[in-house]
Amino acid sequence: MHEAWIRQVVGMAAENVRRGGGPFAALVVRDGIVIAAGANQVTRANDPTAHAEIVAIREACRVLGSFQLADCDIYCSCEPCPMCLGAIYWARPARVYFAATHCDAAAAGFDDALIYEQLARPPAERSIPMIHVATDAATQPFQEWIGQVDKLAY
Amino acid sequence: MHEAWIRQVVGMAAENVRRGGGPFAALVVRDGIVIAAGANQVTRANDPTAHAEIVAIREACRVLGSFQLADCDIYCSCEPCPMCLGAIYWARPARVYFAATHCDAAAAGFDDALIYEQLARPPAERSIPMIHVATDAATQPFQEWIGQVDKLAY
Repeated sequence: MHEAWIRQVVGMAAENVRRGGGPFAALVVRDGIVIAAGANQVTRANDPTAHAEIVAIREACRVLGSFQLADCDIYCSCEPCPMCLGAIYWARPARVYFAATHCDAAAAGFDDALIYEQLARPPAERSIPMIHVATDAATQPFQEWIGQVDKLAY
Repeated sequence: MHEAWIRQVVGMAAENVRRGGGPFAALVVRDGIVIAAGANQVTRANDPTAHAEIVAIREACRVLGSFQLADCDIYCSCEPCPMCLGAIYWARPARVYFAATHCDAAAAGFDDALIYEQLARPPAERSIPMIHVATDAATQPFQEWIGQVDKLAY
C-alpha cells in the first residue's frame, strides 16, 4: 500500500510543477483514507512556510479538529526539510514515508544542508545572526502560562 | 531600539496567554516600522505550525507581497524552535533578536531538545520513523521543474 501512496504523492508533485508550484507534495493518511493533501505553494502564495508538508499538516489538523495527527501517516514526495521535520515533531504523526531523498533535492537545487549546518551553531554565530537581548521580563509570559495551567489543574 | 521591540514582543506574548494562547509572540520590523505581528495560535487554531514566528513570517510576506523578508528583523519573545529556525532560513530576514532562551522555554515545559536530537539521527532511526520508499518516479518532479526553469531562462 505504501508504494501506491508514494506513487500518488510523486504524481501530485509533478502535477504541481505544471501548475506553477514547486516540485513537492504531501498526503496525510489515516486508516487507509486520505485526510489531507498539500503541494508546495511558496512562490504562488508568497509564503516561505508553504512547503507541501506544512500545507498538508495544517489542512489535516483543520479537518480533524486537532493540533495533533495521532495515528496518521504522512507520505512525502521528498524527504522533509528541517522546518518540516520540526512541524512533523509538533504534529506527532505515527510515521513518515518519503520518495526522493535530500540528495535528490540538493541535485535539483533545493539544498537543506545549509540549514542543518546552521542549526548546529550557537545562535549568534549563524549566517542569519540570532541575538539574545536580555530583559528582566523575558520569562514573564511563561510565568503567566504556568499560573494558568495551575488554575486549570486545581 | 532593540530593547523597546523586545519589551513590546514580550508584552504581546504575556497578553496572548491571557487570551488563551501560548506564551510566545513575534514581530517583523523593517526600517523601524512593524510589518507584521504574530502570537502562538497552536491550540486556538488547531494548527501545530502556528508558532508566533511562523504566523508573523506568513503575515509579513503577505503584506510585502514577497516570499522573502529582505532587510527585515524578527523580534521573538523566545529563541526560535527548529521548525521556526528552518522557516527563518527560508524567509531570509537580516537578523533575529530574542528575549527568553531555549533553557527558559524548557523550564516552562516547552522543550526543543528532543527535536534537535532527532534531527541529527538518520531518518529511519527517529522516534517518528521516516522511511525511504524507493520508486523509479521519485525524481520526476525535479526533472519537470528543471525543464521549466530551463524554458524560463532561455
